[in-house]
Amino acid sequence: MSDTLTTRKEDYSQWYNDIVLKSGLADYSAVRGCMVIKPHGYALWENMRDILDKMFKDTGHQNAYFPLFVPKSLFEAEEKNAEGFAKECAVVTHYRLKTDPKNPGKLIVDPEAKLEEELIVRPTSEAIIWNTYKNWIQSYRDLPLLINQWANVVRWEMRTRLFLRTAEFLWQEGHTAHATKEEAIEETTKMLDVYAKFAEEYMALPVVRGVKTPNERFAGAEDTYCIEALMQDGKALQAGTSHFLGQNFAKAFDVKFLSKENKQEFVWATSWGVSTRLVGALVMAHSDDSGLILPPKLAPLQVVIIPIYKGPDSKPPIDEKCNMLVAQLKAKGIRVKIDNDDSTRPGWKFAEYELKGVPVRIALGARDIANNVAEVARRDTKEKASLSLENLSDTVENMLADIQSSMFTKALNFRNDNTTKVDNWDDFVKILDEKPGFVSAHWDGTPETEDKIKELTKATIRCIPLDNPLEDGKCILTGNPSTQRVLFARAY
Amino acid sequence: MSDTLTTRKEDYSQWYNDIVLKSGLADYSAVRGCMVIKPHGYALWENMRDILDKMFKDTGHQNAYFPLFVPKSLFEAEEKNAEGFAKECAVVTHYRLKTDPKNPGKLIVDPEAKLEEELIVRPTSEAIIWNTYKNWIQSYRDLPLLINQWANVVRWEMRTRLFLRTAEFLWQEGHTAHATKEEAIEETTKMLDVYAKFAEEYMALPVVRGVKTPNERFAGAEDTYCIEALMQDGKALQAGTSHFLGQNFAKAFDVKFLSKENKQEFVWATSWGVSTRLVGALVMAHSDDSGLILPPKLAPLQVVIIPIYKGPDSKPPIDEKCNMLVAQLKAKGIRVKIDNDDSTRPGWKFAEYELKGVPVRIALGARDIANNVAEVARRDTKEKASLSLENLSDTVENMLADIQSSMFTKALNFRNDNTTKVDNWDDFVKILDEKPGFVSAHWDGTPETEDKIKELTKATIRCIPLDNPLEDGKCILTGNPSTQRVLFARAY
Repeated sequence: MSDTLTTRKEDYSQWYNDIVLKSGLADYSAVRGCMVIKPHGYALWENMRDILDKMFKDTGHQNAYFPLFVPKSLFEAEEKNAEGFAKECAVVTHYRLKTDPKNPGKLIVDPEAKLEEELIVRPTSEAIIWNTYKNWIQSYRDLPLLINQWANVVRWEMRTRLFLRTAEFLWQEGHTAHATKEEAIEETTKMLDVYAKFAEEYMALPVVRGVKTPNERFAGAEDTYCIEALMQDGKALQAGTSHFLGQNFAKAFDVKFLSKENKQEFVWATSWGVSTRLVGALVMAHSDDSGLILPPKLAPLQVVIIPIYKGPDSKPPIDEKCNMLVAQLKAKGIRVKIDNDDSTRPGWKFAEYELKGVPVRIALGARDIANNVAEVARRDTKEKASLSLENLSDTVENMLADIQSSMFTKALNFRNDNTTKVDNWDDFVKILDEKPGFVSAHWDGTPETEDKIKELTKATIRCIPLDNPLEDGKCILTGNPSTQRVLFARAY
Repeated sequence: MSDTLTTRKEDYSQWYNDIVLKSGLADYSAVRGCMVIKPHGYALWENMRDILDKMFKDTGHQNAYFPLFVPKSLFEAEEKNAEGFAKECAVVTHYRLKTDPKNPGKLIVDPEAKLEEELIVRPTSEAIIWNTYKNWIQSYRDLPLLINQWANVVRWEMRTRLFLRTAEFLWQEGHTAHATKEEAIEETTKMLDVYAKFAEEYMALPVVRGVKTPNERFAGAEDTYCIEALMQDGKALQAGTSHFLGQNFAKAFDVKFLSKENKQEFVWATSWGVSTRLVGALVMAHSDDSGLILPPKLAPLQVVIIPIYKGPDSKPPIDEKCNMLVAQLKAKGIRVKIDNDDSTRPGWKFAEYELKGVPVRIALGARDIANNVAEVARRDTKEKASLSLENLSDTVENMLADIQSSMFTKALNFRNDNTTKVDNWDDFVKILDEKPGFVSAHWDGTPETEDKIKELTKATIRCIPLDNPLEDGKCILTGNPSTQRVLFARAY
């Protein structure tokens, strides 16, 4: 189990795969591009889901569930959205199998069970949801409609990567309907703020809030807002998006409401989502060559206690202390367990919990008890110390809080150190290779230039930061005038 | 909103549909046989899910997530399972759409994007999971493997019904692997007990625990255990199943382990599941002609407080009392809200919350406050009383507990009144029509007789109850000897 991981320096990409597989987050499956989320990975996702779910409910949203399938005629109703996803759609064409007459015991698709209209496995649910909202919205009294769905979606990606890009993934998608444009835009940015707060306070992941260029917009959106994070290899990762959809879906599905002024008007829409991709972001942003480093607020297990027995006589007093400590930690709401499995050695366990990213490890032996101390190790810095058993639960509680904030600070410092202002093309190209990270540079605002830069360097405009100062400058590629810098990076 | 519902007497089936649609539990969708679970229905399902999830974790299970799709070659590996589900399978055959050259703006399935091997949308996940377990299980140290998954599944049913039978539904499926047959059987019955406890303690739904006849077994199981409940129209509903799978899947997927005795042996398996069907069972078992009646332990909202204003002056003192009451109830962990929306009348609200099944309604007006009382109505009995504001939160807490137990008792009495012992064919047929319910009768133990009885009466053997006394008798149809009674009923 504690085989050595590939190091980040050797091969960052292999290091990532090694960690995900060996720490028990996920596994490959027999289905192309689909993964199995293993118990440790799913527990992490559950913690993320529960916190986000509470944040959504606290901002007035309700959960609902819409069908997995979208009839093709509905799917194509909003043309830009349909066009954007058409190339990634899994399509159900038949609804029955039958025994293969030539090959007993084997099954074939029954050609007589062909669907009249093909069903698309949802890559996103705007179409099926807006087709439903049509029946739910008649008057301004029915608005706003604030609904979220937790679901699986399928996008047939050609190049997949555990958590970061898989054919099937789990996500939440909020879909809201509003009476006015202003209210819809307010919702879009409000949910972006929810995502940013979640990333920073829970994932310990600093993010830039910004707006996408038209090239990078969600298909069917008027504006796409995003949070962008920086990984340890200097590549950016889009961690969440919130879309102002204008009246595009209302028009495609004819969703009108009677306004207070007694007029029929089209409804304004937003949608916003984050996915199991966040698990990948968490791994890439914080972990090290010994394994996962999980922020305490999300770690399925926050503290592990490992008794160090020396012969059977030593067991009762050590167990007693361990049990007492567990009770104290649980009373504080800390997720803790004792690992007293005697089929593995303490050294093996140390490596195993390091690999799995448990934030705090406590080892307790007979000599420790004699000295009224325990050996406490924190996962993020790997610091070890003998700490007094007096008030140890308080000490550990404070340590967990410190780990959470230290992880954020470390990631923030990393991002600051790897965000570079650049004012000419040569520097731009050089920085991308020599000091990868965010590159803040002027751009002339045209899609053509953006495409050209991507073609030449593989860097894309991650976003136009929301807090951007206006500043006269010249486009790094064309030299044409620009009014503000944008953030470039190579990205996942 | 408070349109009259069809009554149970008029048309039970229409009454059920009316309630589900009008109380906001679910809606039809544009996809044949798939429903939209609306916020009220989803909140109910979330409560059920969270309680069950805790029960699974308390019995040592962990959650994971496996792919939505099953490659056809894996699907057909366990032949009985494959054969059992083949006729209900949605099949993905293509992975891309393209613009219709003859019809700009429309999409067609891209014939060049045909999958080499078709993918089955999971109707159940034994195949994909056991194919994965093969890689996870090598030694007895890897056992037992106790995993649960919350997921959507698709079974292409020809005749669908909101919640009770839909093409897509949400469920949980536990899949466990064990070193011995005894341990697997113990797991099967343990999880059956979890389901029975959940049904009785939370859903207020008495259930019979039993084992299915071979005819009614899950495809691929050695034994199927079930809980069966009785609905108000005297039809039975299977509310959960737990399967002992023997070594069938281990053999189909070649999952062996090295035993303590150093021998390669096939693994023993179980699977068990409950679904959103339980929401339908809840509606059918308890509700009345005014709408839903929800057991307090599952109701999304347990108490609603409706202030009765008479002119603006009356508002502040009433609001003050309402807010105080909310604070007291919330402190007890009771889910409560005030509805002070002044765009609808109190009478309308009363009907609305009755329809939605809120267990306790409190109305509070100026005269009530002067008399230091509130009008408290309980949904199950529709009793109303003026109760003292002193300790009202205690009174309401006790009332919620009483509603929970009264609902169970009422359902249990109903079941007892509608379970009939029958000893000959004429009575059997007569009872099924005149006093529908469970019919306890002797059966000769052959599948042929079971089929014949089903053909003649549409009644099936719901189960052989686990606590059945042995008793000599004669089969009601054939007169052949029988050693015990079984439970017959017409069923959903």
